[in-house]
Amino acid sequence: MHMHTEETALLGTASMDLHILDHRLRVTSICKNGLVNFTHPLIKLIFLRNRTRCKFFSLTETPENYTVVLDEEGFKELQPSEHLKVESSIWLPLNVVSNGNSSSSSQAVGVTKIAKSVIAPLAQQHVSVFMLSTYQTDFILVRENDLSVVIQTLEEEFNIYKEVGGESVPMHCQEVSNGLQKNGKEAIQPTVHPVLIPQNQFCVMSLDPDTLPSIATTLIDVLFYSNCPKEDASSPNQDLDCIKFFSFSLIDGYISLVMDTEAQRQFPADLLFTSSSGELWRMIRIGGQPLGFDECGIVAQISQPLADSDISAYYISTFSFDHALVPEEDIVSVTGMLQHQRKEPAAS
Amino acid sequence: MHMHTEETALLGTASMDLHILDHRLRVTSICKNGLVNFTHPLIKLIFLRNRTRCKFFSLTETPENYTVVLDEEGFKELQPSEHLKVESSIWLPLNVVSNGNSSSSSQAVGVTKIAKSVIAPLAQQHVSVFMLSTYQTDFILVRENDLSVVIQTLEEEFNIYKEVGGESVPMHCQEVSNGLQKNGKEAIQPTVHPVLIPQNQFCVMSLDPDTLPSIATTLIDVLFYSNCPKEDASSPNQDLDCIKFFSFSLIDGYISLVMDTEAQRQFPADLLFTSSSGELWRMIRIGGQPLGFDECGIVAQISQPLADSDISAYYISTFSFDHALVPEEDIVSVTGMLQHQRKEPAAS
Repeated sequence: MHMHTEETALLGTASMDLHILDHRLRVTSICKNGLVNFTHPLIKLIFLRNRTRCKFFSLTETPENYTVVLDEEGFKELQPSEHLKVESSIWLPLNVVSNGNSSSSSQAVGVTKIAKSVIAPLAQQHVSVFMLSTYQTDFILVRENDLSVVIQTLEEEFNIYKEVGGESVPMHCQEVSNGLQKNGKEAIQPTVHPVLIPQNQFCVMSLDPDTLPSIATTLIDVLFYSNCPKEDASSPNQDLDCIKFFSFSLIDGYISLVMDTEAQRQFPADLLFTSSSGELWRMIRIGGQPLGFDECGIVAQISQPLADSDISAYYISTFSFDHALVPEEDIVSVTGMLQHQRKEPAAS
Repeated sequence: MHMHTEETALLGTASMDLHILDHRLRVTSICKNGLVNFTHPLIKLIFLRNRTRCKFFSLTETPENYTVVLDEEGFKELQPSEHLKVESSIWLPLNVVSNGNSSSSSQAVGVTKIAKSVIAPLAQQHVSVFMLSTYQTDFILVRENDLSVVIQTLEEEFNIYKEVGGESVPMHCQEVSNGLQKNGKEAIQPTVHPVLIPQNQFCVMSLDPDTLPSIATTLIDVLFYSNCPKEDASSPNQDLDCIKFFSFSLIDGYISLVMDTEAQRQFPADLLFTSSSGELWRMIRIGGQPLGFDECGIVAQISQPLADSDISAYYISTFSFDHALVPEEDIVSVTGMLQHQRKEPAAS
């Protein structure tokens, strides 16, 4: 195991559990023009819980496309189409649960908390991860084929459980073979990707699922019609320095929404809630060209320096690019860090 | 003019206005399997008033298909498709407004009130009508090409107004030529069509447009997903003697819903309202084979005997069949009337 001394200290006597959740996920994208063809299944998956067995659903609009991550039950609803791209792997969501009675020394939330214990070791072992931060937690998606490497890499640090039919079953994987290059990939120096820092302010919110019907028409409007012209208003053109980004997820009954403050104003103020600090977030989009799914260490590259500085971060991967969200007051120092990283060769 | 003596007496000193509304309508049908392809435009037309200029929209589900009647602004939203049939004519909605200070001797509502003053004379002149009763009123749709015949036929009985940009402009059509066969069609004896009388009980309801968002997910479920299996409930199979029929319209800002009591139970009880009598209605479906749009006198055939007996009736034409709704307590006598009509040759 490659373990930093700070991490050892940080963990102390805290007990950390890693749960392999009981969802088999597909990562797909729908092109912008093709969304009209998927309105019927997507509205079913978002609003009509009694008509679907889907338990893991996430939809993220970016300027490039719509990324839809969903379990196999949900995936059945999407008809094959020229407008739909499907990543070929099955992905499994992992979840870190800190259940120790010693409080962590870090006040940071989000991907920062797992940067050194999960993200860095997996990058070191060349495991690709697809991150999906929500209001409630941070899902670390790994390919099903990489699962034995993941377990070997993390089992010293974590109690690993596999959730099966609502039960958490402890896993012990003594049988898997050892070796540094566990998934047979070469240890190449990671690419340092260009970043884009749009001007929008984002909020990360949640909603009581029972009140989802109350915001249905607004949510449908924002998700499915935001590119249609409005007839009744001369809405100002989107600021050129802003980026279109809206994420909705409904996972195991929990709703999470990530939207900018312009979108937020369209929703009734009393139904969506955010953390007590009411923080606003700025986005760092990672990647100049679409990143693909095979490169490792992209999340690590950005989450490591944030962890060193104890800066909270959400992280949302999409089909084309990765997106980190950092507190508004930290954007200047984070920008400085990233510029520094891009001038110097990446630290080993 | 062919005028019955009762009618002359009934009208007495009441002043009756006929308004030609400022909508140019298309009558279309979407096949059952094709609805998924039209979910995006239909949800926009129903729920997102600020994204469309459409002012006249009606959607009726029957076992055969979905009939969509909408103005040209709304029609633009429907992409051509193998799943969409479009009747070739432009249809204009007419509306009777009784503004006299002498109260009518009839307590009946709906198409019964206009059976003798409008429906019968138009049938006599071989003008096809497409009826659309709503909670608020009864729209009589006629082909734009038949308008001069309609005006000639009805101008002795009515003050005729054309609505133009929100103004009601009186019409006088002295210039049109006279003649009994005004639209050049032959006076053929009308076919007596078979009728079907399903067991469902229907209600005719309305809703404050401001509360439409509150029922959005239920309405979407009923309109777009009623043919999908439910995952959480073993819903009983639809009674074989019942018929699938659900109609939603949003016309000039007024909402009307016609549904059976089984569909009604899915909606929150406190938002939909009906007339104070809270009447339930039974359906008479007219036609054994799809009726088409050219035959005249179908509405007259059924509304005349109802008018003679002063029985209220709503009347909803669809792409394939016509549907009359009569009060539950009158269904036995109406059935008797219809059987009588089908044994004897149609009265001249």
